Amino acid sequence: MSRFLNDRYLSLKEYVPGEQPRDMKYVKLNTNESPFPPSEGVVDAINADSVRLLKLYPDPDCSELREKIAGLFGYGKENVFVANGSDDILNFSFMAFCGADSHSVVFPEISYGFYKVYADLYGVDYTEIPLAQDFSVDPEDYIGIGKNIVIANPNAPTGLALDRATVERIVASNPDNLVLVDEAYVDFGAESCVGLVGKYDNLLVVRTFSKSYSLAGARLGFAIGSEGLIADLNKIKFSTNPYNINRLSMIAGCRAIEDNMYYMNNCKIIARTRRRVTEELRNIGFEVLDSKTNFIFARTPEMGGEELYAELKKRGVLVRHFARESIKDFNRITIGTDDEMNVFLRAVKEILGK
Amino acid sequence: MSRFLNDRYLSLKEYVPGEQPRDMKYVKLNTNESPFPPSEGVVDAINADSVRLLKLYPDPDCSELREKIAGLFGYGKENVFVANGSDDILNFSFMAFCGADSHSVVFPEISYGFYKVYADLYGVDYTEIPLAQDFSVDPEDYIGIGKNIVIANPNAPTGLALDRATVERIVASNPDNLVLVDEAYVDFGAESCVGLVGKYDNLLVVRTFSKSYSLAGARLGFAIGSEGLIADLNKIKFSTNPYNINRLSMIAGCRAIEDNMYYMNNCKIIARTRRRVTEELRNIGFEVLDSKTNFIFARTPEMGGEELYAELKKRGVLVRHFARESIKDFNRITIGTDDEMNVFLRAVKEILGK
Repeated sequence: MSRFLNDRYLSLKEYVPGEQPRDMKYVKLNTNESPFPPSEGVVDAINADSVRLLKLYPDPDCSELREKIAGLFGYGKENVFVANGSDDILNFSFMAFCGADSHSVVFPEISYGFYKVYADLYGVDYTEIPLAQDFSVDPEDYIGIGKNIVIANPNAPTGLALDRATVERIVASNPDNLVLVDEAYVDFGAESCVGLVGKYDNLLVVRTFSKSYSLAGARLGFAIGSEGLIADLNKIKFSTNPYNINRLSMIAGCRAIEDNMYYMNNCKIIARTRRRVTEELRNIGFEVLDSKTNFIFARTPEMGGEELYAELKKRGVLVRHFARESIKDFNRITIGTDDEMNVFLRAVKEILGK
Repeated sequence: MSRFLNDRYLSLKEYVPGEQPRDMKYVKLNTNESPFPPSEGVVDAINADSVRLLKLYPDPDCSELREKIAGLFGYGKENVFVANGSDDILNFSFMAFCGADSHSVVFPEISYGFYKVYADLYGVDYTEIPLAQDFSVDPEDYIGIGKNIVIANPNAPTGLALDRATVERIVASNPDNLVLVDEAYVDFGAESCVGLVGKYDNLLVVRTFSKSYSLAGARLGFAIGSEGLIADLNKIKFSTNPYNINRLSMIAGCRAIEDNMYYMNNCKIIARTRRRVTEELRNIGFEVLDSKTNFIFARTPEMGGEELYAELKKRGVLVRHFARESIKDFNRITIGTDDEMNVFLRAVKEILGK
């Protein structure tokens, strides 16, 4: 720390991303990346010509990409915001819409760990709402709460999802507050609320190209919302970093939308593998939550979560463990290819002597 | 605007980037891009293999790129911060270091227009210091001022630079305040203060790959400073968007540093063209400030700045005009290739009947 940092950040605890180890080659099931590469359309579109054009600034309005995303969901460009990963959008949203009094915010106590970091960063008045006993989000806790709401649906790291009708009840019962639904994992089997955006001006749906579109390395997220919400996000973007999306990621995003079928098929493959791994783990005594995502959240009564994580790491398999008391028995395991998951399952069985 | 935006942004005026028109093909001399493409090393390094790896997150620590930049300037990785364009770094710096009282800030009244936007965005106490009569930054205004200082050196849109010894006097006379020197244009002929970073822990030098490294479209900026300042910037980064640099831009930056000679040679070519254009404009009665950058700032007594801008645009040449009263007679003209500048000069002569 320097002598020059604003005092208000002294107690701020930054987010800690999943490990990106360089010491050896792991079966990497710890950061929810796709095991499949981007489509060949994306690979073809980023070529020597597009690299040579890097001498020019990208389009700060991101018109083409916004139009393509809008087209996919049946909205207009003015309903679409794009940014440098969905973290960028969450950051802008906490900055733009959250604060004290009528801008205070609630989110589940167990969810994406970054919500709390953003709330701390901007000095936002926030409440963490505990999950139900079965680790689900209890919608009754959010009905008519009269505060801004941030919900990951499906939730992470549990993988559990609310159905669309339930989210709609939450949105409809809080008409004077923003409801941000973070749908990072929705393509793997949950119901999206994008279709509700035309009906509720207080709903902002946040999505990412990092998971279902195999573009974690391109940093591309988008949000769908009412024209007013999108204009507010653009105001923040143009007041911080107008050119926040680089030219090559813009190309990748446009081509990925054109190749939507390829990605949606990959999601089906991942969901099928997820069901198989869930079943195999349950067969050897694991409790596995009912995931709608590209990861599973699982614990065994035979070994602590941290120990299992460490034993797997020794065997070259990386999963994610969270130290938080109420979930410390669990590990979050990304669904990779069938081959990768077989390596994982063999390692688990070896560790537990099955 | 939505009903949900925080009141504190109601009067915020966002930054307006230079036009990126899509209506026709212009000789584009309005956003200070390089007329030269990235080096062939960069073009080769971004290939099908690197695109396929976009399925994985980038290294959030940006180790390789930070090490390469550190090596170029003779510092350690811990003295280097990298971000999604230098705007990202300016944004983080205003957020981290600027505020009220001892964190209040001064910058030149005529400079990069974004400083004022950041100050407004974060509710920072700031003072704009007028330029001297000749449009230069008067160092005496900053000696021992006892506030944070943000200076673009060379300054934009004037193109004028202070020498290193003068900047050092400013830094040394304000030991308890941060001095941020924005060196976006330094490679085109001014003296860099990067060498002073080891001596002064209150100096942060901000640079970009957008101008001299032909990578405006990749969004890549970096800062060199004391370990404490860099740690603070990383704290903000990891509290907002840890993966703020995508994989392909990371590759481009690493290869660009390896091809440093190519880029520094391009800077010499641009400086030579700048000297020629300056002379030709002066020969037809223009006042042209003594630029150390890849643009010139010029006015003619024969025509208002906005009118000249509009006449040039009609003829397919795009330059940048600023409406601000004290500089409204000027245009800022990016230095392109010799051919592009000949088109520009012919258009100017035609407009003025020379």
